[in-house]
Amino acid sequence: MEQYLSIFYGLSFLIAVIAFAYAAYLYLWVKKQPLKNGKIIEVAALIREGANTFMRREYKILAIFASVIGLLILLFLPTPIWKGKAVSNIAMALAYIAGTVLSAIAGKIGIMVASLSNGRSAEAAQKGIKPAFLIGFRGGAVMGLIVVGCSLFGVAAVLMLVGDASILLGFSFGASSLALFAKAGGGIFTKTADVSADLTGKVELGIPEDDPRNPAVIADNVGDNVGDVAGMGADLFDSNVAAMTSAIVIAQSLSGGSFSNVSMVFGYGVMGLLSSIIGIATARIGKNGNPTKALNSSTYVTTAIFMILTALATWLVPGFSWRIWGAATVGLLVGVIIGITTDYFTDDSKPIVRKVAHASQTGPAFTILSGVAYGFISAMPAMIGIAISALAAYKICEPMGEGYAIFGISMAAVGMLSIVGMIISNDAYGPIVDNARGLAEMGELGEETIRIADELDSAGNTVKAVTKGFSISAAGLTVISLLGAFMSEVNAALAEAGRELITGFDIMDPTVFFGTLIGASIPAVFSAMLILGVDKNAQRMVAEIHRQFREIKGLKEGDPKAKPEYDKCIDIATTGALRELIPAGLMSILATVLVGMIGGAKAVGGFLLGNIISGLLLALFMSNAGGLWDNSKKYVEAGNEGGKGSTAHKAAVIGDTVGDPFKDTAGPSINTQITVVSLVASLLSAIFATFSLFG
Amino acid sequence: MEQYLSIFYGLSFLIAVIAFAYAAYLYLWVKKQPLKNGKIIEVAALIREGANTFMRREYKILAIFASVIGLLILLFLPTPIWKGKAVSNIAMALAYIAGTVLSAIAGKIGIMVASLSNGRSAEAAQKGIKPAFLIGFRGGAVMGLIVVGCSLFGVAAVLMLVGDASILLGFSFGASSLALFAKAGGGIFTKTADVSADLTGKVELGIPEDDPRNPAVIADNVGDNVGDVAGMGADLFDSNVAAMTSAIVIAQSLSGGSFSNVSMVFGYGVMGLLSSIIGIATARIGKNGNPTKALNSSTYVTTAIFMILTALATWLVPGFSWRIWGAATVGLLVGVIIGITTDYFTDDSKPIVRKVAHASQTGPAFTILSGVAYGFISAMPAMIGIAISALAAYKICEPMGEGYAIFGISMAAVGMLSIVGMIISNDAYGPIVDNARGLAEMGELGEETIRIADELDSAGNTVKAVTKGFSISAAGLTVISLLGAFMSEVNAALAEAGRELITGFDIMDPTVFFGTLIGASIPAVFSAMLILGVDKNAQRMVAEIHRQFREIKGLKEGDPKAKPEYDKCIDIATTGALRELIPAGLMSILATVLVGMIGGAKAVGGFLLGNIISGLLLALFMSNAGGLWDNSKKYVEAGNEGGKGSTAHKAAVIGDTVGDPFKDTAGPSINTQITVVSLVASLLSAIFATFSLFG
Repeated sequence: MEQYLSIFYGLSFLIAVIAFAYAAYLYLWVKKQPLKNGKIIEVAALIREGANTFMRREYKILAIFASVIGLLILLFLPTPIWKGKAVSNIAMALAYIAGTVLSAIAGKIGIMVASLSNGRSAEAAQKGIKPAFLIGFRGGAVMGLIVVGCSLFGVAAVLMLVGDASILLGFSFGASSLALFAKAGGGIFTKTADVSADLTGKVELGIPEDDPRNPAVIADNVGDNVGDVAGMGADLFDSNVAAMTSAIVIAQSLSGGSFSNVSMVFGYGVMGLLSSIIGIATARIGKNGNPTKALNSSTYVTTAIFMILTALATWLVPGFSWRIWGAATVGLLVGVIIGITTDYFTDDSKPIVRKVAHASQTGPAFTILSGVAYGFISAMPAMIGIAISALAAYKICEPMGEGYAIFGISMAAVGMLSIVGMIISNDAYGPIVDNARGLAEMGELGEETIRIADELDSAGNTVKAVTKGFSISAAGLTVISLLGAFMSEVNAALAEAGRELITGFDIMDPTVFFGTLIGASIPAVFSAMLILGVDKNAQRMVAEIHRQFREIKGLKEGDPKAKPEYDKCIDIATTGALRELIPAGLMSILATVLVGMIGGAKAVGGFLLGNIISGLLLALFMSNAGGLWDNSKKYVEAGNEGGKGSTAHKAAVIGDTVGDPFKDTAGPSINTQITVVSLVASLLSAIFATFSLFG
Repeated sequence: MEQYLSIFYGLSFLIAVIAFAYAAYLYLWVKKQPLKNGKIIEVAALIREGANTFMRREYKILAIFASVIGLLILLFLPTPIWKGKAVSNIAMALAYIAGTVLSAIAGKIGIMVASLSNGRSAEAAQKGIKPAFLIGFRGGAVMGLIVVGCSLFGVAAVLMLVGDASILLGFSFGASSLALFAKAGGGIFTKTADVSADLTGKVELGIPEDDPRNPAVIADNVGDNVGDVAGMGADLFDSNVAAMTSAIVIAQSLSGGSFSNVSMVFGYGVMGLLSSIIGIATARIGKNGNPTKALNSSTYVTTAIFMILTALATWLVPGFSWRIWGAATVGLLVGVIIGITTDYFTDDSKPIVRKVAHASQTGPAFTILSGVAYGFISAMPAMIGIAISALAAYKICEPMGEGYAIFGISMAAVGMLSIVGMIISNDAYGPIVDNARGLAEMGELGEETIRIADELDSAGNTVKAVTKGFSISAAGLTVISLLGAFMSEVNAALAEAGRELITGFDIMDPTVFFGTLIGASIPAVFSAMLILGVDKNAQRMVAEIHRQFREIKGLKEGDPKAKPEYDKCIDIATTGALRELIPAGLMSILATVLVGMIGGAKAVGGFLLGNIISGLLLALFMSNAGGLWDNSKKYVEAGNEGGKGSTAHKAAVIGDTVGDPFKDTAGPSINTQITVVSLVASLLSAIFATFSLFG
């Protein structure tokens, strides 16, 4: 049977290499596109340098952080090194480092291609929507292909080399560590720059959004890249690796057919990546086409191809089960449906955004209140969707035997994430065309070009809402299966210690309940720390901008000789982002350790549940409310409810400013926080299972 | 042993009667205080009439609602009436009606005495802080004594007459139904009036808060009474009854010594009420004393007396256990500690409120963001406190035998709520002196009197934050024990059907998980519906105020002959509040029924858990963020960060407007929503246990 698994390892490497090759082709294609406008070349170079500055500094701090964690793993995990199995400790430490490095490489490449694409897409917009769209989309697709290729390659390589799924947890934790830095750190960076640029530019001076006089304007554009390209890529790399890891951990704990189960995980990954490649290759837009439709239809094509491919595989490949196919399909379909409901709450052609825009006429308090209310409501369909898909996957796979039900949930997560290559492509398209819009303005490419860039940008925002709902939901299923993986690990530790296994986490058990209550408060505090981080960091940056306006002569007046010191702002955003992020990350990890030390494994089970429940609720609430406010503002700016400069507009701008850290910093970072905590719990399961105060 | 219990029934009736008598004495004392100012008499009469209009209409709709529910209970609960035990059905329907009626009477009396006290307290403020304080406090104490007396009397009477704790669930559900109307309906009413009065008065016309020209001003003052007096009273009546009921349900399911356990519940209730009476009777303030200190020290006195009395009883009375005393004491102490931490986040002499006020200088978006962030953080200490007290109570009582651990948690809730008489007195003091402040202004009693009234009012706000944190936490422990009661009821039903009992709700069971995810979304949607309800209702009222300003000649200009039509505004607030509330209540109940029908009793267990977890988080967040914004505004108005009229002030006013429905409508109504849902679950447990789609 092991040979059987070898075939799937081989297929995984093969498809990953194909993805890399295709990504290289797209990269060269983008690079070949013309870029002649001197101003755009100049500004694009500034953005690229700024992004590199952030990445360099981030990776430097991360390297220190990862070395410390790597050393701790080497000493203590999976078991203290002096207890004999040193080779496992070395393997896990290396796997951890590999997880961070692969994710970092994917992020670095993503940023590289994004900063190549933005200027070229702006220039292509002079010729029409079609070429500009293609550059934006293919630039994003490079990121999508690299991320999924790296995750499949990495998981297959680690498992093939060590054979033990527990070591994979180390790899997954590496991916999560990096995602925490990239997503939450990038999120603080991007909103610091955005908020500071808006406050000093639009509000104080009354100059346009992308006016080059503003010292924060480059940092703002850099932010789109580090937050939305590198951050989002690291986030989905993390989710994808975590989903596969937990499925493999559970598969290995199953009594029979574990090899074919593990094979299935890789098989689904291979077919998902293949479907994404086909979806990316066939993405097209007409000459006057609608970019939103083009992006969405690629997603649907990918979904359909994946379902057909996996059905074929289930029919043909021995050991592949129709029940698992059912579970994965349920996950995937629910993901698409959740995406559509998210769209309902955040699209400005739908009633909700318009209601919030209308409420803004009564003043900002009503913008906030109605946005909060609809944000709360918007969480429900996704929560129900996740609940139904988890229940359905469980029930579909339950008849296969003990443990298969939870395996079914993990395969629903794998199914939901299978088309992640496509999702990332759509998602990375957003910041590229957002940058392109800014560059078109700064390069003075004319009204028509800016209009086209605006249309591309708006499609990016709409699709982003959908992909964000999708990725939060996928993370939801993943963390449920991580809960299953945690129990497997606890039982493995208990079995080794010769103690009674646990069968679950009963909420009537007060240690479980204790954990649940505390776990539920973590995402709230984590979000709060990130939001306050943006706030503090923005204050520092605003002070710096004021200093530049004061000290650099002619800058405020628009003298072309007066050059703002863009790099100072980038510096502040970078240093501050990392300084604000680390306490939030440590708080989450320490809380997990404390709860485990006090209440033991059962308390940690409850803790993870509470974390998942309140994390999903808050992530959905904040992401959707933020998207809602953003699009309400755009709707008013398009001339509705009084248009620009009206009472409604002023109120909508306040809503948007509140929504910015909600949707781009805290909301999407919660995913990563939950994954980090779940993996820490699994990694330390042996300690929690055998030592605790009350457990 | 039954005679033993009879003694405690007797003691309960006796202490309830003493409480009623003392309340009557205080009522007459308040009534005897002088009230001579014509303007105050006139306005106070308008407020009283307005409150009565609301109560009359509310009780009329409630009577229809209660009749329908009562009829359904008669037909179907505890078992369908055609299955034979008609007498149980009649008993439960009557118990349900009794629950609504007793709560309604308590609310009615509370409003009556509050509207007697407000004007008298305003007039007494001319003589100094001491007499004005005493009138406000004693007016509030009448409500406290009546509420606790009624709940103890009601629970004892129902149990003595029917002997079956299940029937008590009907009584408790009656109390919850009324609380839902009084708290959520009153909350929508009060914020509709408040927001509309502010928008049209302060913002549009620039006239002071309590200017009698504003047609909404009476509705605003009525709102303080119906929301904060009647609503809060009904809420704590509900919590108190629910805590005792779940403790009794669990006590009856215990194998040995159930009579002495039930006796202990009543014993603690009796001693709690006695302690509150002593605390109220000894409340004093010096001539130039600090009213906040006076209110808080009464709470501490009551707490100390209760602990001593219960310790004495445990020492002397056979069957009273030291472990239970420990559990109750833990609950009580944690309640006090949570109150103090709440104060830290909402008191304007502490750093958090000042930070939010400082952030307001950068604009309203930062008021909102920092308030949301600190609101999130503020939830954590209370969640940890509840977690620790539940765990400690469980562990303390676990050695007593099977089932005692959960009984310990329910007794921690009873302990936390034992001093509720004192808590209500402090809480009802708030709206009385708030009204007094308005009346002092309208009656033109002079600057010094208004200053004194202001000081009393500010103490009310500070203490309110503490009591709110306390009551949410008490509700938290109560609903945990209601979860225990639900399991007892499910097992009773399963035993009757001859099926295997359940031992708990395992979160690895997908039906439990399914329920948890959906349950967690309910408080969010419920809150959203209430917030949107205030929004819609305020729009109607603002339209009406604009109409009056347009059509009533001289009103805007302040012509003394132009009388605003106060009653029209009260009408709109009343009708709208009830119209907006009912869908929110029905949504919660229907979701419970649906989850039960789909996933069975286990799914409902998860549903209750999710509901409790996210409900506590959101309730704490919204109550504290609202209090924080309110006090930040007051802090700025006191001359800090630029004072009145500054940028910071405008931003702080927006924060306060957002916070109003957070802290007075949605936040404190979530308690009731959770209790209603928990009781519906327990009442329908037999159906969920024996019939469901996937359960």
